[in-house]
Amino acid sequence: MTGRFALMIDPVAADVQRSDFADTFTQVDAAAPALSVGELSTQRGDGVFESIGVVDGHAQEVVPHLERLAHSARLCDLPVPNLAQWRQAIDHAAAQLGSGESVIKLILSRGVEHGPTPTAWVTAAPAADFSAVRERGVRVVTLDRGYDLGAAERAPWLLLGAKTLSYAVNMAALREAHRRGADDAIFLSSDGFVLEAPTASLILRFGDRFVTPAPNGGILHGTTQLSVYEYLAAQGFDVGYDRIPATDLPQADAAWLVSSVRLAAAITAVDDVPLPVEHTLTADLNRYLLSPRD
Amino acid sequence: MTGRFALMIDPVAADVQRSDFADTFTQVDAAAPALSVGELSTQRGDGVFESIGVVDGHAQEVVPHLERLAHSARLCDLPVPNLAQWRQAIDHAAAQLGSGESVIKLILSRGVEHGPTPTAWVTAAPAADFSAVRERGVRVVTLDRGYDLGAAERAPWLLLGAKTLSYAVNMAALREAHRRGADDAIFLSSDGFVLEAPTASLILRFGDRFVTPAPNGGILHGTTQLSVYEYLAAQGFDVGYDRIPATDLPQADAAWLVSSVRLAAAITAVDDVPLPVEHTLTADLNRYLLSPRD
Repeated sequence: MTGRFALMIDPVAADVQRSDFADTFTQVDAAAPALSVGELSTQRGDGVFESIGVVDGHAQEVVPHLERLAHSARLCDLPVPNLAQWRQAIDHAAAQLGSGESVIKLILSRGVEHGPTPTAWVTAAPAADFSAVRERGVRVVTLDRGYDLGAAERAPWLLLGAKTLSYAVNMAALREAHRRGADDAIFLSSDGFVLEAPTASLILRFGDRFVTPAPNGGILHGTTQLSVYEYLAAQGFDVGYDRIPATDLPQADAAWLVSSVRLAAAITAVDDVPLPVEHTLTADLNRYLLSPRD
Repeated sequence: MTGRFALMIDPVAADVQRSDFADTFTQVDAAAPALSVGELSTQRGDGVFESIGVVDGHAQEVVPHLERLAHSARLCDLPVPNLAQWRQAIDHAAAQLGSGESVIKLILSRGVEHGPTPTAWVTAAPAADFSAVRERGVRVVTLDRGYDLGAAERAPWLLLGAKTLSYAVNMAALREAHRRGADDAIFLSSDGFVLEAPTASLILRFGDRFVTPAPNGGILHGTTQLSVYEYLAAQGFDVGYDRIPATDLPQADAAWLVSSVRLAAAITAVDDVPLPVEHTLTADLNRYLLSPRD
């Protein structure tokens, strides 16, 4: 369990300006009891989170992750996080991580039932070794997410654009994928459009154009996907967002699931239909995603 | 915080038979740190729960609650709980509760990330005072749940029949109801049928027939609703389950939200349209629901 720890954060208001928030952090062992049973994160999945990749002690894409945390908090009527405080907590944790790949998670919970403030913490731990899956790729199945494309806008209380702690369905979808002999899943809307994976964004290639499902409130805007788009655009490729019918999936010239810790995994098959795999581009993407970025 | 505590349960396999499980319980103060940050209940809302009403130290409807806990666990691929062990934990907690109304929650989490076993505990606390709302009733608004009636059967990974810890949407729906000046919400399917409330079941009266939306996998089978149906049937009323179009709601002769702790609350208005309120029957229902039942 070496290298696994958490910093409990005593949250301060969003507008508090200080040069040093270190006295608001309390470091605890990841295995030690730290949360009470009254925690609404645990009772209700009521809170928001982010997972940040860390490479050789450098936390990647911190600003987009913090912005998304604040966005999720707003959608869930949680107090706006003080991003300077969170940034220092991330830096504080990252400084204690050694070489290699790690993961820092940010968690902002509604707090203890009937309590006065949210509960906030970051965790730090070594990342699993994803080198094989980055080379080998993933087989995916498509799974109905139950919502039509218009649900997010029509019913904001469904929190479809927020990265909440209520991930039981995402976890169940991964188990269903494994049951079907696949590694991962792609969610489809009930009206037949491609959405995202349970814990990753999807990027498809058609010729020299790369496309990802439009983040219209029902899909999380992927921080890693944004990084990949920057890289591809710099290489002269055309990148964009679109409504993608599920029937387009098997027609793609290549496809990837991208996420903050596993990074880019080529999709080798969708529902048992093989997809072409671009080994060189995939390796390039992962080399780029492993380079220090802010 | 008097009377608030938890029993941490060291879960044993479902088929272990023992007369006494007391050595598998560890009592902790509800406010004390008891859970690690690696808990998947807190990171992913990954687990299942039940809320049980307790009246003068008697836990109500324990068997239906335990059966639903086991059902939820099955749907979530969690190890089947040992119901004798859970029953003893409930009895052990209830015995420490004084007179008046309390609530015992059962929580079965997938456990610590990469850990070997689920984490399990029960909490015990005094209930909020719901006497006023039982008399006064609740104003409700209807909110789109985003799923059509067929989603539960078509996509079991949506876990629609399980009472999971991923309740962020249910909590957001209650906040939306409050924003609209109401006390509670009724979820509608995207194809226009009545489902349930975020934390309660719905019972409607049309003449001498009482009807509740059919628990078809997409709706939790309410333990309190079952109790109310027993009572009503014994009084000679006709009770049943149906598909109920949302357009039928304002036509009801009376309606109630029923749940384990708040018990029966008459609905006084749906989307600002007043509904007739049966004060005498509501009082009878609550008197019955407060009497000791197993």
